[in-house]
Amino acid sequence: MEVITGGVTAAKGFQAAATAAGIKYQDRMDMAMIVSQVPAVTAGTFTTNVVQAAPVKWDRQMVAEQRCAQAIVVNAGIANACTGAEGMECCRKTAEAVEQCTDIPADQVLVASTGVIGMQLPIEKLQAGVEAMASELKDSIEKGHQAACAIMTTDTKPKEAAVTFEIEGKTVTIGGMCKGSGMIHPNMCTMLSFVTTDLAISKELLQEALKMDVQDTYNMVSVDGDTSTNDTVLLLANGMAGNPEITEKDENYDKFIEALNYINTAFAKKMAGDGEGATALFETKVIHADTKEHAKILAKSVICSSLTKAAIYGHDANWGRILCALGYSGVKFDPEAIELYFQSSFGRIQIYQNGVAADYSEEEAAKILSEEEVTVLVDMKMGEAEAAAWGCDLTYDYVKINADYRS
Amino acid sequence: MEVITGGVTAAKGFQAAATAAGIKYQDRMDMAMIVSQVPAVTAGTFTTNVVQAAPVKWDRQMVAEQRCAQAIVVNAGIANACTGAEGMECCRKTAEAVEQCTDIPADQVLVASTGVIGMQLPIEKLQAGVEAMASELKDSIEKGHQAACAIMTTDTKPKEAAVTFEIEGKTVTIGGMCKGSGMIHPNMCTMLSFVTTDLAISKELLQEALKMDVQDTYNMVSVDGDTSTNDTVLLLANGMAGNPEITEKDENYDKFIEALNYINTAFAKKMAGDGEGATALFETKVIHADTKEHAKILAKSVICSSLTKAAIYGHDANWGRILCALGYSGVKFDPEAIELYFQSSFGRIQIYQNGVAADYSEEEAAKILSEEEVTVLVDMKMGEAEAAAWGCDLTYDYVKINADYRS
Repeated sequence: MEVITGGVTAAKGFQAAATAAGIKYQDRMDMAMIVSQVPAVTAGTFTTNVVQAAPVKWDRQMVAEQRCAQAIVVNAGIANACTGAEGMECCRKTAEAVEQCTDIPADQVLVASTGVIGMQLPIEKLQAGVEAMASELKDSIEKGHQAACAIMTTDTKPKEAAVTFEIEGKTVTIGGMCKGSGMIHPNMCTMLSFVTTDLAISKELLQEALKMDVQDTYNMVSVDGDTSTNDTVLLLANGMAGNPEITEKDENYDKFIEALNYINTAFAKKMAGDGEGATALFETKVIHADTKEHAKILAKSVICSSLTKAAIYGHDANWGRILCALGYSGVKFDPEAIELYFQSSFGRIQIYQNGVAADYSEEEAAKILSEEEVTVLVDMKMGEAEAAAWGCDLTYDYVKINADYRS
Repeated sequence: MEVITGGVTAAKGFQAAATAAGIKYQDRMDMAMIVSQVPAVTAGTFTTNVVQAAPVKWDRQMVAEQRCAQAIVVNAGIANACTGAEGMECCRKTAEAVEQCTDIPADQVLVASTGVIGMQLPIEKLQAGVEAMASELKDSIEKGHQAACAIMTTDTKPKEAAVTFEIEGKTVTIGGMCKGSGMIHPNMCTMLSFVTTDLAISKELLQEALKMDVQDTYNMVSVDGDTSTNDTVLLLANGMAGNPEITEKDENYDKFIEALNYINTAFAKKMAGDGEGATALFETKVIHADTKEHAKILAKSVICSSLTKAAIYGHDANWGRILCALGYSGVKFDPEAIELYFQSSFGRIQIYQNGVAADYSEEEAAKILSEEEVTVLVDMKMGEAEAAAWGCDLTYDYVKINADYRS
């Protein structure tokens, strides 16, 4: 596997475009479009929230009922959530606009939105946006980058990744773009991720691969514990790499899983590190847990703890909060048996063992915690299972971003 | 039932004292002591955190094994959590100090601590504190108030409540004090509550009454979702009201339950409204849910939502976040069927119905949200069950209090 430059256009046959449709922002691109040269086998995972945005309903049905899709249209600014029948109508009209401007039928068009809940999308602007993008589609790295920028809300940087790997002499590429948490006039931290590959693979295995990998990647991220109404991951595989179609869980499938996990993990970390107001990516790694499920619950409990997140912001080696968060996670363990460490590019120190504080330097701990990526390592001393979870520190800016009055 | 002035000394035969023991704070009282003139039947509920502070272990065992207790010693500043064998030894020595200064045996002494995790208590200072307090015990309102002040950490005000009611011609009093979230050098939002009554009641019914009522009161509070290692509620009943002992769930028991619920609800709201950095008490009332359990889950999901809490701080009628928090609570419902309202002493408005925004004035909503107590009313339109939960807004000061480096 090789990491390469690029994103959603890295894989063969995928084009992108972006435009300033003026949906809510006045001075930036706010729509993106991804098109596959040929129909692509499609997998998707969506928010578990009972309240689901119109585009989530649209995509969920399409992914369930159809083998392929060929285009994705995304907008930032308005989430098209809690918008009733008009919201669904807007999804349909957006797809029809694509059909009118390209040779792609409306029932091959996926849609996604992120932004304020409860507002209706200005459909004419979306239609004009689609028309503008349809004539600008290119498979260049630059177009992919523009698309990644266009779907940002309060994200401070675009998020792209791509890798290649070999299957029976054919080079397969997998790439994508995603956005994380927040909005200028924020309502929700919506997670959107779009991954494209030229791999040939069956619909069933593509969906299974995505469903499994999401558990260890996106689902291990939390910025603020609020599960959006719009969360969407779409994975399109158009087969243009020319490999023999993967139809069973063989070594080729494993290669794909490795590459997919790389992309999804990279996106999970990018989203966490760029959480609203964040100054640091805050990772928790749990090792030697008795089961994988317990390792995940423990890791997630720590990265979700408001008190721990605030301590990370303060570069405060406040291990009591970490121990406390492990303790209320619901997993049973012996607090006197486990060990805690802080680590970052600055170094690594043990902070807790045998039920009491380890003999460490607060000064050194503060230096470790001052890096942009900070890890808490939890050694449960119970078994062989491990898991990682990713969050961010809790800062003044998180409150500022989310308390500002909508206007 | 009548609400009266007073707290932990309101009920007959209960005395209190407070002192500046210099445990961690240099310029304020930081120890309190409560004594019953006669042994009091005792009930307790404690943190569910796997990591439990030494005083929690001490009290849990005493409440389980003995019918009565006669004294409680509390300190603020150091939590005596993650302190190993030395921490347990400190509980024992504190109880022994009470035995030396009074006629109360050490095995009748409960202890409680709140403060920094991982530091050892200075036992000599605690012993001196007990000695000082033992000679100052009084049943006055003033002493009770001093005790309520002494157990504060980042609380901005002491928290007391008391009521009286009649049982077969005898006046029964129930009162108490509690502390909420935060510390000057914060580690944990520890909830401590001490309720005293002169009611005569069996140990079994006292424990059952407390255990049941805690579910609808303290357990419906969240400041930041972090369950402390030290949370403790102690309820002492010394029988000095002279009523015939309550030994079954008759109408007298119901009267007691009503009074106990009043005290515990008052404390729950006081703690939430005085949460770290809070500018407002944020209440969510769920009505017409299908089951009580669902009503509680829904109410708690809303008051725990960081995004909703930040919106309350910004006086922003951001109902999308509330709907979203209901949606990810785990309870199934039809988002298009429910209704949402904001209410406060300023007034009440409907903000959501039929799956879309109601026709309300943002200006009026902002005024309602500017009060010190703000309620979100959720009408589920499913049944007859209801529940309330209490939290607070998420502010810059929450981050400031919890990011400050320990020093």
